[in-house]
Amino acid sequence: MDFHTEFKPLTVQPQEIEEKSFEMITEELGEHPFTAEQYPVVQRVIHASADFELGRSLVFHPRAIEAGIAAIRAGKIVVADVQMVQVGISKPRIEQFGGDVRVYISDKDVMEEAKRLNTTRAIISIRKAIKEADGAIYAIGNAPTALLELIRLVKEGIAKPGLIVGVPVGFVSAAESKDELAKLDIPFITNIGRKGGSPVAVAAVNALSIMAARKE
Amino acid sequence: MDFHTEFKPLTVQPQEIEEKSFEMITEELGEHPFTAEQYPVVQRVIHASADFELGRSLVFHPRAIEAGIAAIRAGKIVVADVQMVQVGISKPRIEQFGGDVRVYISDKDVMEEAKRLNTTRAIISIRKAIKEADGAIYAIGNAPTALLELIRLVKEGIAKPGLIVGVPVGFVSAAESKDELAKLDIPFITNIGRKGGSPVAVAAVNALSIMAARKE
Repeated sequence: MDFHTEFKPLTVQPQEIEEKSFEMITEELGEHPFTAEQYPVVQRVIHASADFELGRSLVFHPRAIEAGIAAIRAGKIVVADVQMVQVGISKPRIEQFGGDVRVYISDKDVMEEAKRLNTTRAIISIRKAIKEADGAIYAIGNAPTALLELIRLVKEGIAKPGLIVGVPVGFVSAAESKDELAKLDIPFITNIGRKGGSPVAVAAVNALSIMAARKE
Repeated sequence: MDFHTEFKPLTVQPQEIEEKSFEMITEELGEHPFTAEQYPVVQRVIHASADFELGRSLVFHPRAIEAGIAAIRAGKIVVADVQMVQVGISKPRIEQFGGDVRVYISDKDVMEEAKRLNTTRAIISIRKAIKEADGAIYAIGNAPTALLELIRLVKEGIAKPGLIVGVPVGFVSAAESKDELAKLDIPFITNIGRKGGSPVAVAAVNALSIMAARKE
């Protein structure tokens, strides 16, 4: 292919940009309440959002990191609530352990069932996911109704996720859904307040898969 | 398909959640410096981020909104810097005017050329895009190098975008690339500072396409 003209060698490569960014984050963040195991998730969330307030708002269940790493290493599925989360998650590190990154919200049967029950596709996609993805990591960045449905199914003993990364963003139900998640005694990563979103869910899962690929 | 059990009718539907959120945003934002035409973009960015500071940091070229609407109505391509932006943009409203939403960063020829020139895929993807997408809307939420390359090609008179939505997030080069964009006298939407990201780029383009589909 005939690409455009002038060759300008880069002084900074993407890998270097990331390393420099991570150093800046550690320096600017200063003291924080997170453990050494949790910190890579916090750091990557701040990297993805440039928002220290958002990073500091993260809340971890005590077993969250070890459970997330274990699920990835066991080849469990990562269930994304929306396609933006699915495409953002780095697949090779999930697939190398036999896992996969899936999204159900635009499946034909999910759309039909949501219409029939006059409910959200997000809710029905969670009901489908728990049938197909035992012990999955749920990465929910957008739909509070998906997170609330997953919490309900956990409480009823129907869903047994490996880890819930529940960080929906928004003004209606998002903060409330995360408060509910934080009450559960199962592995979760969430945050306090309205902020969150696809890049936060993606950053958390990618941080975990890097740890899964590295650690012994 | 046999979905799970209990039927719980929703009290709030997604459309109602969005309307209620938009009301809350307008109320909490209060006075602001944006025009009536710019405001739907600001509102949708805040809706996607739950971040009023980010919303207030938006900067519009005076012709940005009319140029964006005109480009969509003329069936111009929307070029996304990364796949997360591509999948987040609502396609039916772009396609109804003959347009399309494309991303080049993972194209085989782009990857090969980036490797050969020891530069970023983001830069090469912009060089490919300007050949294929005359008058396009560029939606850049992640890669400062993509935005800097596009600015360079505009200055050299090689690229003639319809609109640049340049809102990369990050600690290295992101804020600087947006400062450069804001100096151009061509239609742009950007923001001041490190914050930004895929959902911001997506929100801006979706707000424009809603206006394009509605307005006369």
